[in-house]
Amino acid sequence: MMDDSEWFVEPAPKAGCSIGLRIRRKLDSVDSPFQKIEIFETEDFGKLMAIDGCIMLTERDHFIYHEMLVHPALMTHPDPSRIVIVGGGDGGTLTETVKHPSVKRVVQVEIDRAVTDLSLRHFPEFVEALGDPRASLVFEDAIRWIERAPEASIDVLLIDSTDPIGPAEGLFETRFYETCRSRLGPDGILALQSESPFLYPHLVRGIHEKLGAAGFRNRRLFPFPQPTYPSGTWSVTLASAETPLDVFRSIQAKPLLGPLRYYAPALHRSLLTGLPVLFADLRSSA
Amino acid sequence: MMDDSEWFVEPAPKAGCSIGLRIRRKLDSVDSPFQKIEIFETEDFGKLMAIDGCIMLTERDHFIYHEMLVHPALMTHPDPSRIVIVGGGDGGTLTETVKHPSVKRVVQVEIDRAVTDLSLRHFPEFVEALGDPRASLVFEDAIRWIERAPEASIDVLLIDSTDPIGPAEGLFETRFYETCRSRLGPDGILALQSESPFLYPHLVRGIHEKLGAAGFRNRRLFPFPQPTYPSGTWSVTLASAETPLDVFRSIQAKPLLGPLRYYAPALHRSLLTGLPVLFADLRSSA
Repeated sequence: MMDDSEWFVEPAPKAGCSIGLRIRRKLDSVDSPFQKIEIFETEDFGKLMAIDGCIMLTERDHFIYHEMLVHPALMTHPDPSRIVIVGGGDGGTLTETVKHPSVKRVVQVEIDRAVTDLSLRHFPEFVEALGDPRASLVFEDAIRWIERAPEASIDVLLIDSTDPIGPAEGLFETRFYETCRSRLGPDGILALQSESPFLYPHLVRGIHEKLGAAGFRNRRLFPFPQPTYPSGTWSVTLASAETPLDVFRSIQAKPLLGPLRYYAPALHRSLLTGLPVLFADLRSSA
Repeated sequence: MMDDSEWFVEPAPKAGCSIGLRIRRKLDSVDSPFQKIEIFETEDFGKLMAIDGCIMLTERDHFIYHEMLVHPALMTHPDPSRIVIVGGGDGGTLTETVKHPSVKRVVQVEIDRAVTDLSLRHFPEFVEALGDPRASLVFEDAIRWIERAPEASIDVLLIDSTDPIGPAEGLFETRFYETCRSRLGPDGILALQSESPFLYPHLVRGIHEKLGAAGFRNRRLFPFPQPTYPSGTWSVTLASAETPLDVFRSIQAKPLLGPLRYYAPALHRSLLTGLPVLFADLRSSA
């Protein structure tokens, strides 16, 4: 059934399924102190960045993930000005963040400089945001950086991490969530990539429980399609100690953000009111 | 990266991506006069039925597709009593259809008896519906069957076909849609599987245009996750000549249908009001 062409195949850990992308050639490969980062040219999905054999992003579909990690959180905070991105070295999350005019300062804390170096070389669409005068690029362990950050100094914290295996493991622990909560201001919102709710419902539930234990009273699951991630469905979770997550600045979204390709205020509203049974069961609280 | 275990891999035609499922063993295989039908036991997705190398259904995720093909259409029709299923030989669509107490008669017109035979042998969850006293199983070319059906004799017509290549090609043509329209009653609704709106937007657009040309003034796209179909996102399209598709019998859904695993009235409503930009662009009319 497979022809002779070359495929990049990623088997999902312990899930018995895999995703493949037909590739033309490998463009780049770096063994950093943290991980192996590869860039491929695919046949139909544009360029592909893979880390340790896992698809991180493709030119064709990354916009869904990046728009959903950033816009629901920033449209829910009443006045998001001070933003911190944990991970996200490729610059995709930063690119969506700087579309918000309320943002005065955004710090991207990525452990691995090689991710950003490769992204600058191969993904020109992120170059502008990575050089935005409001953006600071910090290359160090985000857990340590967050610990040093002053209390209540962050409006929105976006966790754009790899999976909870390897370097990102500590980013999925109650202790880290507690530190995040204390560094967020009173209206503060945390948004994190929360894996596939179809393949790993136990993982999503675990994340929501740990967030609750860390004092994030409100949690909301936002599922979305991501064709090149395992199962084709992924999720972002929003969490807050106080700020209600079931309302957002809906009328401001369009004039503020300009044309987007996935996020729209009507979509945001529909995800608050009408999740499928399968995922609604995972949503832990208002 | 792949280990030694066996995988069933389906490359999506002309789309440069593939889906794989880890399998334990092949359970059955039939070369019918129409196609090759295989049954596998997978590691994590239960049993798998494949036709000509394409994943048709797995025990783990078929409920999403079947619930979305049936319930939006039957909740939109004011009193769905006479139902026809085109294709759907496995019995999954029938299983969801007979959950509606308004249904008096449902005819399943499948070209290939071997599909139903294999389903009865391997998917016990469909056996009850395939023997429902309201159900008739007809094994012949649905195009001919529909041509012989009296005018205005059908309330809801559900097209549960394979892809528009091979035996199902004629089910995606304007001429067939015209015949369907004339066999539907005045409140009639057509629902059809309309492929991946992410991978094949041109195909979805083509289907909607042909439906329009065939007199279906109203069309609505319902996207949903389907982890084992190419891209992980699939769609159903509802079409009608007269019946509005933006309202449905929402308060009746829960008591009527009992517990479902994907469809819910709130989800139905959210899909009418808040599609992502990416798919909203494909929705052709109210």
